[in-house]
Amino acid sequence: MQQKINVGLCGFGTVGSGVVQILENHKEEIVHQVGCPIEVKRILVNDMNKKREGNIPSSLLTDQVDELVQDPEIDVIVEVMGGIEGTYKVLEKAIQNKKHIVTANKDMMAVYGSPLLELANENQCDVRYEASVAGGIPIIRSLTDGLASDRINKIMGIVNGTTNYILTKMIEEDRTFEDVLKEAQDLGYAEADPSSDVDGLDAARKVSLLSTLAFSMPVELDDVDVRGIRGISFDDLSYAEQLGYTVKLLGIAARNEGKIEMSVQPTLVPHSHPLASIKDEYNAVYVYGDAVGETMFYGPGAGQLPTATAVVSDLMDVVKNIRLGVTGKSSVNPQFEKSLKSSNEVFSKFFLRLEAEDEAGTFLAITNVFARQNVSMDKILQMPKKDHSTAEIVLVTHQASREQIDVILHDLEELDVIKGVHSYYRVEGEGE
Amino acid sequence: MQQKINVGLCGFGTVGSGVVQILENHKEEIVHQVGCPIEVKRILVNDMNKKREGNIPSSLLTDQVDELVQDPEIDVIVEVMGGIEGTYKVLEKAIQNKKHIVTANKDMMAVYGSPLLELANENQCDVRYEASVAGGIPIIRSLTDGLASDRINKIMGIVNGTTNYILTKMIEEDRTFEDVLKEAQDLGYAEADPSSDVDGLDAARKVSLLSTLAFSMPVELDDVDVRGIRGISFDDLSYAEQLGYTVKLLGIAARNEGKIEMSVQPTLVPHSHPLASIKDEYNAVYVYGDAVGETMFYGPGAGQLPTATAVVSDLMDVVKNIRLGVTGKSSVNPQFEKSLKSSNEVFSKFFLRLEAEDEAGTFLAITNVFARQNVSMDKILQMPKKDHSTAEIVLVTHQASREQIDVILHDLEELDVIKGVHSYYRVEGEGE
Repeated sequence: MQQKINVGLCGFGTVGSGVVQILENHKEEIVHQVGCPIEVKRILVNDMNKKREGNIPSSLLTDQVDELVQDPEIDVIVEVMGGIEGTYKVLEKAIQNKKHIVTANKDMMAVYGSPLLELANENQCDVRYEASVAGGIPIIRSLTDGLASDRINKIMGIVNGTTNYILTKMIEEDRTFEDVLKEAQDLGYAEADPSSDVDGLDAARKVSLLSTLAFSMPVELDDVDVRGIRGISFDDLSYAEQLGYTVKLLGIAARNEGKIEMSVQPTLVPHSHPLASIKDEYNAVYVYGDAVGETMFYGPGAGQLPTATAVVSDLMDVVKNIRLGVTGKSSVNPQFEKSLKSSNEVFSKFFLRLEAEDEAGTFLAITNVFARQNVSMDKILQMPKKDHSTAEIVLVTHQASREQIDVILHDLEELDVIKGVHSYYRVEGEGE
Repeated sequence: MQQKINVGLCGFGTVGSGVVQILENHKEEIVHQVGCPIEVKRILVNDMNKKREGNIPSSLLTDQVDELVQDPEIDVIVEVMGGIEGTYKVLEKAIQNKKHIVTANKDMMAVYGSPLLELANENQCDVRYEASVAGGIPIIRSLTDGLASDRINKIMGIVNGTTNYILTKMIEEDRTFEDVLKEAQDLGYAEADPSSDVDGLDAARKVSLLSTLAFSMPVELDDVDVRGIRGISFDDLSYAEQLGYTVKLLGIAARNEGKIEMSVQPTLVPHSHPLASIKDEYNAVYVYGDAVGETMFYGPGAGQLPTATAVVSDLMDVVKNIRLGVTGKSSVNPQFEKSLKSSNEVFSKFFLRLEAEDEAGTFLAITNVFARQNVSMDKILQMPKKDHSTAEIVLVTHQASREQIDVILHDLEELDVIKGVHSYYRVEGEGE
């Protein structure tokens, strides 16, 4: 067996220096667990002359990719530099040179995950990406461990910290989306261009990565039905509260009879549901397994040390696999063909908020629309506007397919008595 | 490397047959992950003639312990038969014969954990006991993984399903402790002799196991300060609700500057805290790590398949370690001498419920008692009884030491205006 594992580190920003720190500070514990030391042999940086904290020998630094990916003594490439196209090329070359990969790069994985994993399997290499999904939560590890002895049927979670922060502040402080977003940007919690977060793309990338793994199916980002939180009004949140729900941006991936559905959308969960109590920038993922039942993992979704810790855990797993001779055999090599549910196979309860004429017959017209689709109602709240010109109607249906709801939304818009359908959201986490 | 790992299974009840099932149904996935097949070679049973479901070849069954622990071809003993003294003797002999151990036996581990782990380390054997603590939650695994790259400072959790079920029903259905306990017994959720659960011993065993691991310190069951839920009244729960808290039986283990505290006691957590939303028989454990921050694991605490899944995960880890040549090196070998905090070093907020004379001067007398100990108040609720003979006073302090609270409780009892101190509980999960 090998007496030492050498690592090539691509990127030396906050996460990269966190990784170096942890490997240094936890040397002994690591040897205890994996059976040999792990050493950083080379660090790829952009700027060789930049002044750096800590006492990294400058001989470790290089700006030449080949000094990592072509070095026969380097066993594992740890990629924490970000970027998509260029970074994929680097990792591709690394795998062709039989290097194992640990990456924290969700954007690259969402686009190039499938070819990268395939190439890795051909070359008997491991690719680990725990840190790319909800850095502080060992969710990928739990799925992988669980997969060997259980069957996962549903994953549902808050996988974007920025949007959870915004929704938390909106409801707790009676504020608008725009107002809280601006504050989050000023504080550095949200990007200057916040669309990747608030439009749900970041969450969708994570959902596609988790689904690929949990259902062993090669899904793509485009297969995820995505709706962000940009259109959410304080009224939506407040009516949801009155009916006993909290609104969260949930990523959902579920499998029935071999077919899967994936979505990211604002979703109502009952106050009593554990996901309802996840506040601020925290992440949490619910997993439903055949054997184990419901489990949930909660923690920080990002941050220097949580992400670096996840990278080191992945690295340790890869080192174990190298020494076990089981690399390139990870269950990430999809076992099934892709099979997605169509919109008449995706069921849930729905919350709708309408504005309608406040007159006799209005409610009958509305209930007729639902009755034609055979969808019944669980909860109804009707509030006249102050001047009694119109009424606000908020309702929660029983189970309905996405297709049924689309027809209902269309038919409601056609009704003369309806002034507008303000919003509709999925409802999860309670019985029928 | 070994081409096959043979298992001796002690016990063939619900969990044991679950283990056999999972090993059978997930054969391929297991080979993928650990690099070789795992086979059950021998099963120890009490009664050879008992009729059994499934098609287990009767040649596998034996009632002779030595046919497992002396068999040189058996690598790992999986113990799911329960019992303390006798079972310890079996495992001791197994380790002396260089067998690795996977056990789901919390009672035995709480009493004999230290000598067993010590003996295992001497013999280069692994001992795994994930299934013994909160079967459906991979908490021990997470602590062990985390320990290699983080430093854990606090663990706080609901680790007993029966008591959480009772507390949930009491508050949700306005019922008394005795009433819900009786129902739980009728339904089979609670034992005929419920003391191990309701008096907190079961939870204390788990807390001592988790502390040994998290803080690498050889603690014992007696070091845990234990108070169960037997004395809790519906009034306690209801006043706590009014002040914004939920009462949970929490196991708490914390470390500051090398000293630790461990307790199991009814504890108030704010409604907004994720632990407050853990209902019925579910378990959840909060972990605070230096690097990763707050994480929480939630799931079923027990049950046939959750427990069997945990046993199989442990078994797979042991098999990996055998093949890695890193057995007997687990971090469960304590690194530090035991060092417990004394009662003037254990701090928290406290909830107190008193009955006092409803007259001028009463409140001043009470506040004087707190002021003498330099303990200030965060929340106060005073309600006169209907006949105005006495008043009920409920209050929450700011941080106070256990010692300060003991003096306060004593001094309050001495006051003429106090008719009685009905209850006092720790408060956790909110800032100062």
